[in-house]
Amino acid sequence: HRLQKVETHAEVDPASDHRTIGTAQSLFTTHTSSPGAPFFQPDGTHIFNKLTAFLRAQYPAFGFCEVLTPTMYKQSLWEQSGHWANYKDDMFMVTGSSSHKPEAAPVEFSDGWMQPKKKFIDVREPEEFGLKPMNCPGHCLLFQSQRRSYRDLPIRYADFSPLHRNEISGALSGLTRVRRFHQDDGHIFCRPSQVKNEISKSLDFVRLVYQTLGLEDYALVLSTRPERDYIGTLDEWNRAEDQLKEALTASGKLWRTNVGDGAFYGPKIDVIVRDSDGKSHQTATIQLDFQLPKRFMLGYEAPAPDLEAKGETKLDPISRQKMGSVTPVMIHRAVLGSLERFMAILLEHHKGQLPFWLSPRQVIILTVTDHVPVKQHAKKLKDTLSNTAGDSMPKQIHHPTYIVDVDDSGDSISQKIVRARKKKYNLVCVVGARNFVGEQMEGNSATLDVNVTAQPNQRKTWDAIEKIKPGS
Amino acid sequence: HRLQKVETHAEVDPASDHRTIGTAQSLFTTHTSSPGAPFFQPDGTHIFNKLTAFLRAQYPAFGFCEVLTPTMYKQSLWEQSGHWANYKDDMFMVTGSSSHKPEAAPVEFSDGWMQPKKKFIDVREPEEFGLKPMNCPGHCLLFQSQRRSYRDLPIRYADFSPLHRNEISGALSGLTRVRRFHQDDGHIFCRPSQVKNEISKSLDFVRLVYQTLGLEDYALVLSTRPERDYIGTLDEWNRAEDQLKEALTASGKLWRTNVGDGAFYGPKIDVIVRDSDGKSHQTATIQLDFQLPKRFMLGYEAPAPDLEAKGETKLDPISRQKMGSVTPVMIHRAVLGSLERFMAILLEHHKGQLPFWLSPRQVIILTVTDHVPVKQHAKKLKDTLSNTAGDSMPKQIHHPTYIVDVDDSGDSISQKIVRARKKKYNLVCVVGARNFVGEQMEGNSATLDVNVTAQPNQRKTWDAIEKIKPGS
Ligand SMILES: [Zn+2]
Ligand SMILES: [Zn+2]
Repeated sequence: HRLQKVETHAEVDPASDHRTIGTAQSLFTTHTSSPGAPFFQPDGTHIFNKLTAFLRAQYPAFGFCEVLTPTMYKQSLWEQSGHWANYKDDMFMVTGSSSHKPEAAPVEFSDGWMQPKKKFIDVREPEEFGLKPMNCPGHCLLFQSQRRSYRDLPIRYADFSPLHRNEISGALSGLTRVRRFHQDDGHIFCRPSQVKNEISKSLDFVRLVYQTLGLEDYALVLSTRPERDYIGTLDEWNRAEDQLKEALTASGKLWRTNVGDGAFYGPKIDVIVRDSDGKSHQTATIQLDFQLPKRFMLGYEAPAPDLEAKGETKLDPISRQKMGSVTPVMIHRAVLGSLERFMAILLEHHKGQLPFWLSPRQVIILTVTDHVPVKQHAKKLKDTLSNTAGDSMPKQIHHPTYIVDVDDSGDSISQKIVRARKKKYNLVCVVGARNFVGEQMEGNSATLDVNVTAQPNQRKTWDAIEKIKPGS
Repeated sequence: HRLQKVETHAEVDPASDHRTIGTAQSLFTTHTSSPGAPFFQPDGTHIFNKLTAFLRAQYPAFGFCEVLTPTMYKQSLWEQSGHWANYKDDMFMVTGSSSHKPEAAPVEFSDGWMQPKKKFIDVREPEEFGLKPMNCPGHCLLFQSQRRSYRDLPIRYADFSPLHRNEISGALSGLTRVRRFHQDDGHIFCRPSQVKNEISKSLDFVRLVYQTLGLEDYALVLSTRPERDYIGTLDEWNRAEDQLKEALTASGKLWRTNVGDGAFYGPKIDVIVRDSDGKSHQTATIQLDFQLPKRFMLGYEAPAPDLEAKGETKLDPISRQKMGSVTPVMIHRAVLGSLERFMAILLEHHKGQLPFWLSPRQVIILTVTDHVPVKQHAKKLKDTLSNTAGDSMPKQIHHPTYIVDVDDSGDSISQKIVRARKKKYNLVCVVGARNFVGEQMEGNSATLDVNVTAQPNQRKTWDAIEKIKPGS
């Protein structure tokens, strides 16, 4: 659950640097009032929202439930999680600016949870808060907030919260060296016997997403137990590493082992993706954690707790009768990792020409003449495709909408086509008095073919759009 | 752009208090590690996400573009915006916890914007940041980040960022007295001549959303210029108030005036909604702001700037030739206001039984027997409705999915129906060996009618779902 740096193995062509693309396409910008916190302009936000919508659409099939958790927690929570000891310098601290004096301490209960209907006598908090650099402690608290049985597991939380890390401002740049970012963060709480299946499902998720994004060229790396100073028993590690290896082999992907390179609290699998420039990026991570569930004293009720903890589920009737609390295995997993950094990778991988479904410039309609009926037809087409016609009925949440612009200026059609190409529209439609044309610009294609047909051909546009996968 | 308090005009029935509903339905919870920052559990997050998805679906038709802006800004920005002078006690302050020493100041440019490709020599910031209590200053910076012409206006930004306000912790409770919350925040930057149209569109947006949410019973209140200490000219105020009154009259809704009750920086319209208990809540706000654009020195290029500033757009050819910079009018607007508070209102208004499209418990499938084919049919139906079948192909972003549970326990069907009713499922389907039944539980209906048909009738379920509006 640490943010990894981009590994660069090749020189960057300045024109395909994501910062150049971001500026040229008005995707994002920065300001000295908040160094390292990108401002996403409308087109950049569109890409961000498409990525999260795509992941959200996959979550039900993979059993993930999205949750919303606080931005900051008291210092005492970070002490409990261990972040205070190891991560303090990278965290931002939050205090109330008020001069109000404390009148009384807040009422707390033994397990730390507030009863919602109690009245509190309290004032502005004197205690310091830490701005969260990761979601794990919040998800542990959510797990802890209800009684859990072995029947409830696995519980899988997903969270797109903004995260903050106090990187030195000299290193801040674009979307890759930031202080504020979002992860497609997820935490799985499972039984020891479920580790292999959860790892397999996580690797399936990675494959599905990376195939969709056109980044099939990736490798898997297993980092195993360090020789010393690890927590947990040798047995726990061996069982977990065996399950990880089985899942890796079953994935059919090439994988290798970095012996002894795991964190002290558990083994992990990293995904190393290679982009179109040959650069490698460490993106997805699947990290087992034997430590955090213990620090938060997480538990679930299961029969034969001693056997359960060893991953044994075939129980005889007598041992089944004894119920007890077992510590769940926690798995941190991110499929894209930092969404900001992944957006940078995608922009560079696709040389700024994102695939249709992710693109903030999906369709442009060019008018051949400036006759009123032609302009009206262009406007009508835009309203249909972008679902912006009328406003007396609510738009359906699941109605597909496209980003459509119109160029009905007085310029010549060839000037308009040059401009549309430069602006990287995926689909360029030309509307004339009796002509309608739709053709698609794909991938890194440098040429724009405009088929001129004799009749209006709205169907063709729809067909072009319909065949694009996924969604949008 | 201030957070308004709930106005309570009636006693709350404890059973319909949103905190009781939230606990009973596992929607959200709180923890002492972050007082006033609700933890949304999966079902509460589902409601939150449906509300934002619904608003997002409306944004294109109303010309709003979503943006993503930082969580914190340097103190100097809050001084510029005026929040430091007026709002300091309600803000949280952020500092790096590091002991690193500054080596050099960051390189800044005259307009405050960083050049993306420059190298900075800098270290961890010694300056304090304020955690944002509202999005307005960030949106002003975004407006300022590019050159704007009168042709670009109106520019409308929408933002769902989490916001923080340092409320005293004794007052914190549920979703209505919080420190962390989200708004369906929006800012419109427009020409003085566009104010009336923007207000009209905002009132249309309000009507559309409130009708969809079953909250048609609302009133509009115009707050006008205070007698003294206002900024701007009397002319500016009169022109603006006239446009607001015209838009209010054109809305066809009842409205009244609170004379002199406007903020010193501009007039506003409040929406006061009455819920099913007769309680009134101030929710939506449309607030004109003559001040913030001046504090940020915002401008756009227009012909005949003196006339443009007065809202005059009919220009003769000579005055049209002189271009110059004009200060845009800024409109703060929120349709729901705090999403957390609105969720509380909806939960109480609907007595915990949310309409189908918002509900986190949309469908439950009950098995009449525990025969394997019946269980399999239930499972298949669930996979179809919830779009969870298979995982080798990505799910489409716009494919409708439903929240579907299955009760295939060994309990009797009447026990299962009682349990389903108690859990507030909107649609209860009963699957038997040769029977399939779907019927809908609507609104506050206390009775559950189960039609038993002779044949499996999957079509009926789909029909019931299809007819529910909007979306989902
Ligand atoms: Zn984590
Ligand atoms: Zn505002």
